[in-house]
Amino acid sequence: MSLAIGVDVGGTKIAAGVVDENGTVLAQIRRATPARDADRTADTIAEIASALAAEYGANSIGIGAAGLVDEDRCTVLFAPNLAWRNEPLGQRIGRATGLPTVVENDANAAGWGEARFGAARGASSAVILTVGTGIGGAIILNGELVRGTHGLAGEWGHMVVRPDGRRCGCGLRGCWERYASGSALVADARELATLDPARGAGLLESAGGRADQISGIHITAAARAGDPAALECLRNLGVWLGRGMAALAAAFDPDVFVLAGGVSEAGDLLRRPAQESFTSLLSARSFRSEPEVRLARQGNLAGLVGAADLSRAV
Amino acid sequence: MSLAIGVDVGGTKIAAGVVDENGTVLAQIRRATPARDADRTADTIAEIASALAAEYGANSIGIGAAGLVDEDRCTVLFAPNLAWRNEPLGQRIGRATGLPTVVENDANAAGWGEARFGAARGASSAVILTVGTGIGGAIILNGELVRGTHGLAGEWGHMVVRPDGRRCGCGLRGCWERYASGSALVADARELATLDPARGAGLLESAGGRADQISGIHITAAARAGDPAALECLRNLGVWLGRGMAALAAAFDPDVFVLAGGVSEAGDLLRRPAQESFTSLLSARSFRSEPEVRLARQGNLAGLVGAADLSRAV
Amino acid sequence: MSLAIGVDVGGTKIAAGVVDENGTVLAQIRRATPARDADRTADTIAEIASALAAEYGANSIGIGAAGLVDEDRCTVLFAPNLAWRNEPLGQRIGRATGLPTVVENDANAAGWGEARFGAARGASSAVILTVGTGIGGAIILNGELVRGTHGLAGEWGHMVVRPDGRRCGCGLRGCWERYASGSALVADARELATLDPARGAGLLESAGGRADQISGIHITAAARAGDPAALECLRNLGVWLGRGMAALAAAFDPDVFVLAGGVSEAGDLLRRPAQESFTSLLSARSFRSEPEVRLARQGNLAGLVGAADLSRAV
Amino acid sequence: MSLAIGVDVGGTKIAAGVVDENGTVLAQIRRATPARDADRTADTIAEIASALAAEYGANSIGIGAAGLVDEDRCTVLFAPNLAWRNEPLGQRIGRATGLPTVVENDANAAGWGEARFGAARGASSAVILTVGTGIGGAIILNGELVRGTHGLAGEWGHMVVRPDGRRCGCGLRGCWERYASGSALVADARELATLDPARGAGLLESAGGRADQISGIHITAAARAGDPAALECLRNLGVWLGRGMAALAAAFDPDVFVLAGGVSEAGDLLRRPAQESFTSLLSARSFRSEPEVRLARQGNLAGLVGAADLSRAV
Repeated sequence: MSLAIGVDVGGTKIAAGVVDENGTVLAQIRRATPARDADRTADTIAEIASALAAEYGANSIGIGAAGLVDEDRCTVLFAPNLAWRNEPLGQRIGRATGLPTVVENDANAAGWGEARFGAARGASSAVILTVGTGIGGAIILNGELVRGTHGLAGEWGHMVVRPDGRRCGCGLRGCWERYASGSALVADARELATLDPARGAGLLESAGGRADQISGIHITAAARAGDPAALECLRNLGVWLGRGMAALAAAFDPDVFVLAGGVSEAGDLLRRPAQESFTSLLSARSFRSEPEVRLARQGNLAGLVGAADLSRAV
Repeated sequence: MSLAIGVDVGGTKIAAGVVDENGTVLAQIRRATPARDADRTADTIAEIASALAAEYGANSIGIGAAGLVDEDRCTVLFAPNLAWRNEPLGQRIGRATGLPTVVENDANAAGWGEARFGAARGASSAVILTVGTGIGGAIILNGELVRGTHGLAGEWGHMVVRPDGRRCGCGLRGCWERYASGSALVADARELATLDPARGAGLLESAGGRADQISGIHITAAARAGDPAALECLRNLGVWLGRGMAALAAAFDPDVFVLAGGVSEAGDLLRRPAQESFTSLLSARSFRSEPEVRLARQGNLAGLVGAADLSRAV
Repeated sequence: MSLAIGVDVGGTKIAAGVVDENGTVLAQIRRATPARDADRTADTIAEIASALAAEYGANSIGIGAAGLVDEDRCTVLFAPNLAWRNEPLGQRIGRATGLPTVVENDANAAGWGEARFGAARGASSAVILTVGTGIGGAIILNGELVRGTHGLAGEWGHMVVRPDGRRCGCGLRGCWERYASGSALVADARELATLDPARGAGLLESAGGRADQISGIHITAAARAGDPAALECLRNLGVWLGRGMAALAAAFDPDVFVLAGGVSEAGDLLRRPAQESFTSLLSARSFRSEPEVRLARQGNLAGLVGAADLSRAV
Repeated sequence: MSLAIGVDVGGTKIAAGVVDENGTVLAQIRRATPARDADRTADTIAEIASALAAEYGANSIGIGAAGLVDEDRCTVLFAPNLAWRNEPLGQRIGRATGLPTVVENDANAAGWGEARFGAARGASSAVILTVGTGIGGAIILNGELVRGTHGLAGEWGHMVVRPDGRRCGCGLRGCWERYASGSALVADARELATLDPARGAGLLESAGGRADQISGIHITAAARAGDPAALECLRNLGVWLGRGMAALAAAFDPDVFVLAGGVSEAGDLLRRPAQESFTSLLSARSFRSEPEVRLARQGNLAGLVGAADLSRAV
């Protein structure tokens, strides 16, 4: 059975693994990312990929990197949290390891992992939403990953969902990520607790009484314990997720939506209001089966598994 | 050179033509649509396609039909202005003519025509917006037409662009087609003329003094003559087109947008405000070349030419 | 007991009556308004007021006129549906009849009638909303009619309730009268019936199948018969009434709101959703008794009665 | 010439002064507020008022208190930052000093001070906006202070200016004070500096590099020095002030608006965008002189002067 190496390169750690054709991870190595040093980051990747390849006999390497990847699927054009600028990463790792190497954006790689082996397995068209600090994701159409002209497909964080709405760092107003992301969730909870300490009492308590210390973990934990304010914040997030998802469904009619990323760990407390809001805004309902909104299944292995799989087709 | 027959089936007329590999139409036949009689409509198509095929020696037939087409690209599931319900149109025409036959939704066919031979020629990813009574269109990604799970990709008329906005016939509020379509343009102009007859004087005059008689043709003509109210209505439409286009660009990062459909005949008076509004809302501008917003070039031949071309790949 | 003459001057008819100190109308005369002739309109008023005064021995005359009245409470500065421009009406009628004469805006006069003898009797502060073609009204504070600097107090039709909302004839967008008036109600119902004929079937039927013939009377009648579409239109209107009323309550803290004008004939079908929407948006609830939303009680006599009463204080 | 004592009771300090009929303050005493002790607060007021009265021979006492005052103008029903609940303050001070005493809400007292002797002097109808932590104010109509049924007139902080907008501590969404107050200004500037540190560089620098330390003083200072981000934040605030002011103008047609409170110290950098936004939304412009938007002139003496004057009429 053919094996491939998958590498997931984030701002703080690099994970590499040997992945078989069924998406099973046979072995893994993790290292801290020497994020400020572009060369050392590449060297570290080459080193652990080589080690795994030597031991398991893999045929190709796929790298999911937190950055914008050129259409050559080799060059990292820009990576906000790494030192890479126009870095020919694929070529470099290929040369160092002697294996064909493919580079892809990390959200695309993770989306592909969920599409091939996880929550969207078997769907012909899927949208994977990675809800973390911001909101990005991946689009699969007819079984293929959509990259877009500049590799920016799935970078919908700045799709405007509310004309003249909240100020965004990108210079626009009303961007989706200002309403539907981990940051938006935390900001909403802090605001609630500051403006109405009585209703926010549960959230405040879990954060040592300080609104500005409330984190996503506090919110999810409080929601699980039934705290009404925490549940309301997750519901708000779900409503705004649903609004953007309905826009995406109107545009390209997918089978399945997958909620991935750190915030998706809230599970059904997030998925249910998202599905409900989405369903209420879905058009042409008599002509389609309603796309299911599912939770991601591969957790933080999705990127590694997806990257490995993308390298097979080369 | 290989020839194909393209057929464009609308609620009022059927146009068929012989199309070569460069998208040139060598010959054409037009007939009124016997819209209330499903059988006679199919017979008419078969008859004129056979006639053209006999004379020119075509190898395949492509039909663009104003309706929802099954993923088998043969069956028309539903056509609002024709009598077809689950009509196996492709099979029927194929049997009658002896030629392989493909059926596609008319907006998809027309979008394909513009993508292959018209305004989006050479673009790897394009969005074609058909702005007529409503707003539909087609998505081309990596040189392929995107159909979606239920053939509904590009049916973005009910994408919500303004939460809690204008009532829509679909039961939602704030749908794109209520702000960016020929109907919206006409409603806006009639409203302006009713509410402020002094500012709407030019529009009223062109419609014999009756606000409820103002049509798209009056608006475009008045705008060309420099009427400020007509120009404002086109600008409003352009602003809302730009808003939806920016959402689509954030989602799948196309090269090119094409404005097609009857309303696009307003030309640059519509295209310019649309481009401006779109540009002002485009995200990640430093990482992409700004997609161009172009006017369609094939007019009402786009559907016929696109359908013919789609039949070649079968 | 002291008697006063009240006159209500509208665009189509003039009503005059003899009113006692309890607001009881002892006698009435009605005439068609010679609306295009400023002099004849004044002459008609003088004539019927004189006739009533001669027979009943009244001490003063109060005139409610559909226009903007100067702070001298004598001159009609502008009347959109009458021929008056800077017309010294009070002086003229006073000279012709020998009785002290006061002129007031008709909505103010009607509001005063409801405040003194009708639905707001006994309230120290009241807001009377006249919901007809547009939405105007009157403010009573500490038992006095508020006129404002230019006689425009209570002319809140162009208070913006939705930033960047519906186009208004005044040049702004999102004005209250575009959401909460008889015209808005009719436009909403026509739109509903046009966009969704199935849901609008009851409304369409009552208007002979033509959406553009649906009137306020049809809507009210259909709502009384339980038609869901008509009820929804009245509920929408009530929601927007409540929003504006909550803004007014936040500003000047009245005891009572009165719904008057033609649209208020829908009764509780309008009043209830208005009260509900208002209550949900009322601030500082623990520090106030919630203002009641009441229906007007004096119908089309309110203007005449109020005008008569306003003339007593001179 | 008749003299009156004015007292301004805030959460941190009590200021008392002797005021003549022209609003001139002849002498002043200031003390820290013993805010947690209702009795000692009243005793302190009595003590300093007596001292001034003894020395200057005043005839009455007016107290402006930061709380909700009953219509008897004697009892403080509730004071969020003081210990008073149903405190018969007027009676108590009257008994202790032997002088007739009137109590009024502090924003009303300050508004009255500006109306009688400050920026709105000579206006028959004025709206004074106190823009501090929140946004409150006072209404003067026909030369009289409007109190409303529960003393809540002018408490417009929770007037909804944006349906479904920002969450507010009162439980509603879109309240005016969430867009137009010192808190909103600071939140906006912090958000801008957090989301876009490059544009917010000037603001960040003035706050030692920490977005969460940016204060109103930093913003005003940076704006005066021409910092574009600070100017933008003040402009945003001005736009939202103008929106609410236009609603108030539509409702009761005042001569003059006065911007008072701490935020008004930004001067024309705030007043100009507020006037501009207000003007653009003012209705019926051909029938009125546009109300002027002025800056307060009495600074923190307004409350003391206004309270003294209100006591004269008793």
